[in-house]
Amino acid sequence: MKADGDRIWRSIEEMATLSEGGGPGVTRLAYGPLEREAHALFATWMTGAGCTVRVDAAGNTIATRPGRADGPAVGTGSHLDSVYGAGRFDGIAGTMAAVEVARMLAESTVETERPVRFVAFAGEEGARFGQACCGSKLAAGLSSRAELDERRDRDGVTLAEAMTQVGLDPDRAAAEPWRPGEWSAFVELHVEQGRVLEDAKVDIGVVDLISGSTRLELVVDGRASHTGGTPMRGRADALAAAAECVLIAEQLALDPRHRGTRATVGRLAVAPGSITTIPGTVTFSLDVRDVDADRQRRAALEIAARMQAVCARRGTRLSARLLADTSPVVLPDWVRGEVTRTAAELGIPYRVLTSGASHDAQMVNRVTPTAMIFVPSREGLSHVPREWTDPAQLAVGTDLLCAALLRLDARAAAAPPALEGEPA
Amino acid sequence: MKADGDRIWRSIEEMATLSEGGGPGVTRLAYGPLEREAHALFATWMTGAGCTVRVDAAGNTIATRPGRADGPAVGTGSHLDSVYGAGRFDGIAGTMAAVEVARMLAESTVETERPVRFVAFAGEEGARFGQACCGSKLAAGLSSRAELDERRDRDGVTLAEAMTQVGLDPDRAAAEPWRPGEWSAFVELHVEQGRVLEDAKVDIGVVDLISGSTRLELVVDGRASHTGGTPMRGRADALAAAAECVLIAEQLALDPRHRGTRATVGRLAVAPGSITTIPGTVTFSLDVRDVDADRQRRAALEIAARMQAVCARRGTRLSARLLADTSPVVLPDWVRGEVTRTAAELGIPYRVLTSGASHDAQMVNRVTPTAMIFVPSREGLSHVPREWTDPAQLAVGTDLLCAALLRLDARAAAAPPALEGEPA
Repeated sequence: MKADGDRIWRSIEEMATLSEGGGPGVTRLAYGPLEREAHALFATWMTGAGCTVRVDAAGNTIATRPGRADGPAVGTGSHLDSVYGAGRFDGIAGTMAAVEVARMLAESTVETERPVRFVAFAGEEGARFGQACCGSKLAAGLSSRAELDERRDRDGVTLAEAMTQVGLDPDRAAAEPWRPGEWSAFVELHVEQGRVLEDAKVDIGVVDLISGSTRLELVVDGRASHTGGTPMRGRADALAAAAECVLIAEQLALDPRHRGTRATVGRLAVAPGSITTIPGTVTFSLDVRDVDADRQRRAALEIAARMQAVCARRGTRLSARLLADTSPVVLPDWVRGEVTRTAAELGIPYRVLTSGASHDAQMVNRVTPTAMIFVPSREGLSHVPREWTDPAQLAVGTDLLCAALLRLDARAAAAPPALEGEPA
Repeated sequence: MKADGDRIWRSIEEMATLSEGGGPGVTRLAYGPLEREAHALFATWMTGAGCTVRVDAAGNTIATRPGRADGPAVGTGSHLDSVYGAGRFDGIAGTMAAVEVARMLAESTVETERPVRFVAFAGEEGARFGQACCGSKLAAGLSSRAELDERRDRDGVTLAEAMTQVGLDPDRAAAEPWRPGEWSAFVELHVEQGRVLEDAKVDIGVVDLISGSTRLELVVDGRASHTGGTPMRGRADALAAAAECVLIAEQLALDPRHRGTRATVGRLAVAPGSITTIPGTVTFSLDVRDVDADRQRRAALEIAARMQAVCARRGTRLSARLLADTSPVVLPDWVRGEVTRTAAELGIPYRVLTSGASHDAQMVNRVTPTAMIFVPSREGLSHVPREWTDPAQLAVGTDLLCAALLRLDARAAAAPPALEGEPA
């Protein structure tokens, strides 16, 4: 039983055709119609591989392959949505690895002890609503109904409205999380989105920690006026103030005292945005990540405080709004142990590493013990059209994923784990 | 014969209804359909005031009131287009003052020696095409046909295409400038767009110098990647580099060695513009103004060179493109003298001051000797919805404008000036 790299690649290419806006890159936003099309395609493929498919209240698509007996299932999967102008692999790689595992099992005589579930999560990317892992967070029972009304996209559409527009019911989504008793373990495969594996020339990473992320939206209000008529002294230029803010975030994260913290301003919009008008208002995002929750939040607070001081000195006003705040997650040692032992048995070299990005795995881990497998990202690039992972590397990752799921299934049947943590 | 402040105000309010996009403020862009509607409304009003109206090849609308004899005319006027999200006065104030003068003359028994012309210039604002004073520059024979193909708006539409779309002929526009022999002098009334008059509590400014403007579009190319997966060291963040560039422009203009120079980044766009992606490309504008041509261009070059150094140090690439370069203009002393003598006779206090903004007057001055009258801008604000000039101040300015035009007409008839400069 071997994963077929070419087949995985063809699935990835077919998914990439579902993109809005004509490029560059793939744009398939959280809870948009194209994401639902991608889920429907996933469902078709999984039905073809002998699974029964349902969509949960949050819009996550779950395909089930029955086992010898019913009971807590092992699961795998990732997401199908993307950022604006994305590549073809982030999320898709793991979901297509799940499809490939289902196809490998369908073509084999393998019977599992308990069901295996293959999941396409909805709305993982924070690009549209500022909140990452929307679908898996709902599945984990970590989002309130009110939260779905608070998150808004660029056009002011709330997450709840977007869900309704694609035929989902936000009331049910917040009220019907997954039941821990239905799962025994979960493994997500994902592209690394960094260059540790490429630099180490290793095809497989096994994740121990996932960074948290504190996200703010900041608005600088200055005084718009004519660029020619207004002297330099006494201006309240919102963009000059925001420029200092961008550099403050960078400087703090580069400071050795904040080693491990990553701070980025990824979005920034200037109003009125005319060559001959001093900017009156600038709106920008701040994303602060760390594997240490305290350090992450202290950094975000310190950056915001320094920005505030700069804006006050410049006669501009800064307001800040928390978009999202996710804690770092330590993935359970025992599931990771099963994955690394499987890798060792298959003779696949691996590295244990940390994830800088958020993943559905960190949410699913609140429902059932979860592990993550990384495959390399060329040049460490992600969230860009040039994102690339070699199909042969994807096949290695898929082989490991398949074998690890079978191992976890056997273990669960032999000694069903407690709902949380390592069984005694 | 007195200007009617209320009537001027009603005309301004009616013009303000011609706006796209639903606000805030007025948006009536250069060579767009709404600008042409505004010109049509101007034409209707001028016909009502007994003028004959024609539109020149560049789209400038010219209304003529005959004099006792034909011959070189005195003229007045300003523009009807706006920046994005503008106020109601910039350009409109001067054009509506021209309308009011025409109405005052129509209601009077005054006969002028030579014709009086009232002009609504097309496309004065550089907001759409990066080039200010398009219509008056064409009238002055200072734009080539090729230039009309080079200037593009946000959507890639060239100035020539925009002209064609509103029924103008770009070939003719570049080939049919105004003839100097048809004009004896010109006076433009405009809002100050600064706060010299307000601070001095004086209703009238008479302009001696108009700033030039050097405008660049700059593009920083960095390396987009995932905000979580990419360590701080080794990033090539296009926005962090652009932030330094914004501050470089500000710092240079604030440096006492560059006193008089104004440098502004008014437009800045980030791609891909996602919270979780390090910015890969940032495009921004730079507007450098000065009343000294050498200082203006040296400042622009020095800013660009410093930006280049910063971007290179950061592993990003900066490219620069010249959008427009207009020299400062010294307005002729003798026309200004006629305006200030008129003010003195009418008992209207005035200040002689410099214009930081570009104006059609600086282009018209290449055809015929030109003066400018400023009326106050509240708080110095312009290019914003809150832009305001009191109707009573507009009436004072219009009275001065009307009397100055009659004085210039009388002078032209008595001793027709040479084509350029002060007659002997």
